[in-house]
Amino acid sequence: MRYAVLGTGVVGRTIAAKLASLGHEVAVGTRDPKATLARTEPDGMGNPPFSVWHGEHPGVRVEAFADAGAFGEAVVNTTAGLASLDALGAVGAQALDGKVLIDIANPLDFSRGMPPSLDPVNTDSLGERIQRAFPGARVVKTLNTMNTQVMVDPSRVPGAHNVFLSGDDEDAKKAVAALLVSFGWPRSSIVDLGDITSARGVEMMLPVWLRLMAALGHTDFNFHIQGA
Amino acid sequence: MRYAVLGTGVVGRTIAAKLASLGHEVAVGTRDPKATLARTEPDGMGNPPFSVWHGEHPGVRVEAFADAGAFGEAVVNTTAGLASLDALGAVGAQALDGKVLIDIANPLDFSRGMPPSLDPVNTDSLGERIQRAFPGARVVKTLNTMNTQVMVDPSRVPGAHNVFLSGDDEDAKKAVAALLVSFGWPRSSIVDLGDITSARGVEMMLPVWLRLMAALGHTDFNFHIQGA
Repeated sequence: MRYAVLGTGVVGRTIAAKLASLGHEVAVGTRDPKATLARTEPDGMGNPPFSVWHGEHPGVRVEAFADAGAFGEAVVNTTAGLASLDALGAVGAQALDGKVLIDIANPLDFSRGMPPSLDPVNTDSLGERIQRAFPGARVVKTLNTMNTQVMVDPSRVPGAHNVFLSGDDEDAKKAVAALLVSFGWPRSSIVDLGDITSARGVEMMLPVWLRLMAALGHTDFNFHIQGA
Repeated sequence: MRYAVLGTGVVGRTIAAKLASLGHEVAVGTRDPKATLARTEPDGMGNPPFSVWHGEHPGVRVEAFADAGAFGEAVVNTTAGLASLDALGAVGAQALDGKVLIDIANPLDFSRGMPPSLDPVNTDSLGERIQRAFPGARVVKTLNTMNTQVMVDPSRVPGAHNVFLSGDDEDAKKAVAALLVSFGWPRSSIVDLGDITSARGVEMMLPVWLRLMAALGHTDFNFHIQGA
């Protein structure tokens, strides 16, 4: 299958590499592919420049948002949450129409210092905003409640633990569940929380996740709903 | 030990009964004890009137907030989150000074319909507000991330699962951890998230908890941090 992965940060790279390793055709979408590939400095998070990663994954296309979106039969949003609507706008509603749109982003707002707050929050969510802005897309919120490495390799965390699905389109959720199984998630670990408004709940898990990371001193942990 | 349990709802009754069963002296605090005991109708949540519960727990005192607060060597806040600051104000800062104040409440705002939203949220929390309003109290946020029955009987949920602590006073957190162990929580299940600002994280777990309750159809579940 052909996937567009929007975003060139660690989440985008990790998801793109996993999809490629499973035999999918992948186009990473970015605002300006030439600029993305020309950077030689580590990014703001201290990660190596994208070109280094791309050198290790030469089969992955690097394209402008609109071209990547047109290429993908499904789209994965891994952009920074506060930039997601702009990035998806650059893809365009027409290119998203009818496609499964997997939203992994968290609307983290660093403008008020650390720890980040969420925007939107409480009575709205990024997942809902994306669904409202692109009503023809079949948005599924998932994977946003854990570290990137755990997303594509759940066995890094010992024992049973969960991944959540939120979305209005049942067939889209089924397709995403199948993709998660191909990532290594046991089917029993996938919890369908309901419609896209349940994205509020999973996005609001980020603050405790960040405190847990600080308390535990590592990121190889995940939420498990005991008694489910 | 002498405990004041503020609030006469299901959480207050359950915590008060558990404390009494462990041999503690307990005063339940309410605005108007005579009115509380005179009610003969079920409460807004469909629970039996308080007097029925009190008939089964005659050893528990029922007192005005100020009297209960003066009686308790430690105070447990189980009032509705949006009413907590008023209830604690009725207890009074002097009666809270130096005491451990266990805050179990969630700031659920039902005024905008269902599901409830949180107020405060994101950049503040009820736990922090209480600590700021009563700087002499030693506030520990805990137990707010699960159903009431699970709070006092963690074995209702099979397997390992967690209870969180947030607070600025290390000795107060140690005292609350010891109380949780007496409730049946294994010491290894208690996760210290850090200072009182981490109450934001645990209060923001409520929205996903409510969606999980709807998805699972029961309340005998709890969060477990796998890989901790």
